[in-house]
Amino acid sequence: MAKEVFKSVATLLEGVTVECVSRDHKFILDEPPELGGADKGMNPCEALLSALGACKCIVAGAFSKAHGIDIQDLKIEVEGDLDPDGFLGKNKEAKIGFSEIRTTINIKSSSDEDKIKEFIEFVEKTCPIADTLVNTANYTTDVNIEG
Amino acid sequence: MAKEVFKSVATLLEGVTVECVSRDHKFILDEPPELGGADKGMNPCEALLSALGACKCIVAGAFSKAHGIDIQDLKIEVEGDLDPDGFLGKNKEAKIGFSEIRTTINIKSSSDEDKIKEFIEFVEKTCPIADTLVNTANYTTDVNIEG
Repeated sequence: MAKEVFKSVATLLEGVTVECVSRDHKFILDEPPELGGADKGMNPCEALLSALGACKCIVAGAFSKAHGIDIQDLKIEVEGDLDPDGFLGKNKEAKIGFSEIRTTINIKSSSDEDKIKEFIEFVEKTCPIADTLVNTANYTTDVNIEG
Repeated sequence: MAKEVFKSVATLLEGVTVECVSRDHKFILDEPPELGGADKGMNPCEALLSALGACKCIVAGAFSKAHGIDIQDLKIEVEGDLDPDGFLGKNKEAKIGFSEIRTTINIKSSSDEDKIKEFIEFVEKTCPIADTLVNTANYTTDVNIEG
């Protein structure tokens, strides 16, 4: 098995602004003012939806040629429902994270419609982020405390 | 239930470079050259790990005062194992997405060690991204084809 390890480091800056660094890339995540932040970037929920949409775009882009699909335009909209009363502790019945995530794939292509639909099914099955969200991984947490 | 809808739009640009837009924020995701990309940003796997680490940072930052925890520094490292042979179609036995995701929380604080550990447990349980990854949401996909 050709296991690869991906890594990111998140550092809390002012307030709830967070710098995320992976290899030589970085972006800032934050919260909008109504969720107590300075709005210096997307929030993690939006970043998760972005990762999902981007991953499907990348799988489509990477495999289109091999599947004989011509992609002229590809725009993937992802939206998710989340009840902030869950993590805010206002409602113990509310799910903490997303309850539903909807993807809308908008593709412009000269290929046969049935072939495109078959290809989209392939993309959905082959997307690592979609798989991670549906087929739960094993999670561990370690804590290092410095006084 | 106070449902909120979060949204992101991912657009495939050149190759496998993707622009992700959420409200007035955007970032570029891509793949490194060894995975066929131009390396103009993190890849979606790294962005997912970033979203998870950042979300834990934000929950910690947002709730520290209420829990009486002093945070002087907080750096959260997240790494995940993924076998690219899965999505590359080289090994049908390999999981497509992450098989394991490990979080290391590095916190500098003058608070009592037991109280910090208790607080970290609260953060883990209250993080919307962690919940989304462990307690699977409902997923739907629609396709719009333009010829």
